[in-house]
Amino acid sequence: MNNTMRLRSSRSLTLLVAILWLVCPAGQARGQGKSDPLPGWNDTAAKSAILTFVRETTEQGGPKFVPPEERIATFDQDGTLWVEHPMYTQVIYCLERVPFVVRHRPHLRDVAPFKTVLSGNREAVERLATKDLEAILSATLTGMTVEEYKADVTKWLATAKHHRFHRPYTDLVYEPMLEVLRYLRANGFKTYIVTGGGQDFVRAYAETVYGIPPEQVVGSVGGTKFAYGKNGEPELYKEPKLLLNDNNAGKPEGIHLMIGRRPRAAFGNSSGDREMLEYTGAGSGARLMMLVLHDDAAREYAYGPAEGLPHTRVGTFPQTLYDEAKKRGWLVISMKNDWKRVFAFDK
Amino acid sequence: MNNTMRLRSSRSLTLLVAILWLVCPAGQARGQGKSDPLPGWNDTAAKSAILTFVRETTEQGGPKFVPPEERIATFDQDGTLWVEHPMYTQVIYCLERVPFVVRHRPHLRDVAPFKTVLSGNREAVERLATKDLEAILSATLTGMTVEEYKADVTKWLATAKHHRFHRPYTDLVYEPMLEVLRYLRANGFKTYIVTGGGQDFVRAYAETVYGIPPEQVVGSVGGTKFAYGKNGEPELYKEPKLLLNDNNAGKPEGIHLMIGRRPRAAFGNSSGDREMLEYTGAGSGARLMMLVLHDDAAREYAYGPAEGLPHTRVGTFPQTLYDEAKKRGWLVISMKNDWKRVFAFDK
Repeated sequence: MNNTMRLRSSRSLTLLVAILWLVCPAGQARGQGKSDPLPGWNDTAAKSAILTFVRETTEQGGPKFVPPEERIATFDQDGTLWVEHPMYTQVIYCLERVPFVVRHRPHLRDVAPFKTVLSGNREAVERLATKDLEAILSATLTGMTVEEYKADVTKWLATAKHHRFHRPYTDLVYEPMLEVLRYLRANGFKTYIVTGGGQDFVRAYAETVYGIPPEQVVGSVGGTKFAYGKNGEPELYKEPKLLLNDNNAGKPEGIHLMIGRRPRAAFGNSSGDREMLEYTGAGSGARLMMLVLHDDAAREYAYGPAEGLPHTRVGTFPQTLYDEAKKRGWLVISMKNDWKRVFAFDK
Repeated sequence: MNNTMRLRSSRSLTLLVAILWLVCPAGQARGQGKSDPLPGWNDTAAKSAILTFVRETTEQGGPKFVPPEERIATFDQDGTLWVEHPMYTQVIYCLERVPFVVRHRPHLRDVAPFKTVLSGNREAVERLATKDLEAILSATLTGMTVEEYKADVTKWLATAKHHRFHRPYTDLVYEPMLEVLRYLRANGFKTYIVTGGGQDFVRAYAETVYGIPPEQVVGSVGGTKFAYGKNGEPELYKEPKLLLNDNNAGKPEGIHLMIGRRPRAAFGNSSGDREMLEYTGAGSGARLMMLVLHDDAAREYAYGPAEGLPHTRVGTFPQTLYDEAKKRGWLVISMKNDWKRVFAFDK
């Protein structure tokens, strides 16, 4: 090879690399493989399990390779992707909507549980029974078109704040879990939210907050009714009937309804996620099942009651779930020990 | 520029083009823009409407540009993507499963409508009432796991043949519609099937036949029940209850449930698709609504009864739908006049 040729071929190589860099974002992501895709995680077994799972399932020709179309990962939301304590955000939204509901239906003003909510007595509200909360949910979510509902949730989220952190709820997502979502997607996984919360509520912000589009949000589903509005325009109105309760057995049922494939990876944080993890784990080939344990009162909350943590009404993590996780090889993520930081705003 | 430089830069350009060709399939598809993406279509208004819609919605900065995440196109299946005459394929599958069902539940042998089906009297079977067909569907689809059901449908489709065309049902897809599916996908649209047929039935072959993955099949949905099998393994069993009847108003309702966005384009062929097209058309910005009219007795079938075609029990296309299409600017595709060929095996 003479000098001119060597020069030319070196220039061509530079050009080649530059072009590959510009036109091939997937190659680019792989090129960054040496940097840490999970910087918010400590170097513990949990992080290592995630890295190993992704490496093995994407290794072409390897014994655990999973074809791209089967790379489905499902995530519970409340307590797994963002803060659920002391009450689910959607419940707070519904409670704060009560004055508006009562303005349009004044007879509810003196009726329980609406009266309790209007009293502003925070402790009484936190003690409301599940059936009371359901009555409030039903009254606040019904009668709007799906587009009006989305606009209302979006508007509320823009100003509402968590009373401990004094920040919008959408800031209270777990940075290490966002890293897992991005890392899985960069490796060809389709990430889904599978939540006991309302599907349309989560859809209102899932794309902005998690990068998850509405069609990848599986949630508890109220009915909708197709009807013509006052100008004859076809619309979908929200209805009080429950089509799918996406908790417990409802999670694998919802996954089949909406996805039609058994997930390869599933993440949860409570007994409501047990069946989703069981269903995921029972398939053949590589599988990853993980549970977030809230054991970090300083940075977030500590409740359980696995490992002696206090019981709360949100996201119960009983000792039996902890035992099943151990037995089946599901990994328990300790917020306190496995996460370098919890929120993006943590130092 | 001297000769050496010109030579070098011409070689670099060749290299650049070669690399772009190799690494950038999207660019490649756009590079083929000059060849006809819809070769199975005659040069009529229908073809022109599809080409215009795609050009306008993908023209960055243009007044009708649609962001990629909102590019949702929905297709009815029976009669829109494949042959539905003289009976829906899923009904034929269920009828052919009756002997198997009766073997396991012998008391059904002498009970209507199972007795009629076992008689082999084709005309009597074709005259069965809808409620009889529903009883058969329910009896044949129930009690299997979702994975057993998928395997059974796949096995049946591999050998079953249409009695007129003497070909597997999966050969009886409309080639021009496959072209539309591919063309839309090459331009960033997510293509969905939205069918009155059973969601799990269509999922069994949609990926192979149409390139549409299970999570993009919206159909009529029977319930599933999560339970533990005899070895304790978690499974989903098919249940007889109907969760969603994905016909008429059920189509926009199913679209909201499964997709959560209003489609930009919708294709159907019968009054069961009316509400889907109305819902699609009522959104703002560029929209495309089309209806396939079966007016080609020679190559496929002719039934309607729009434009005086005979009435059948499948895919009714009444004159009122035809009139609404005209009024709202939906395009009616004439199989006879708009399609160069109907099936891939047509000369």
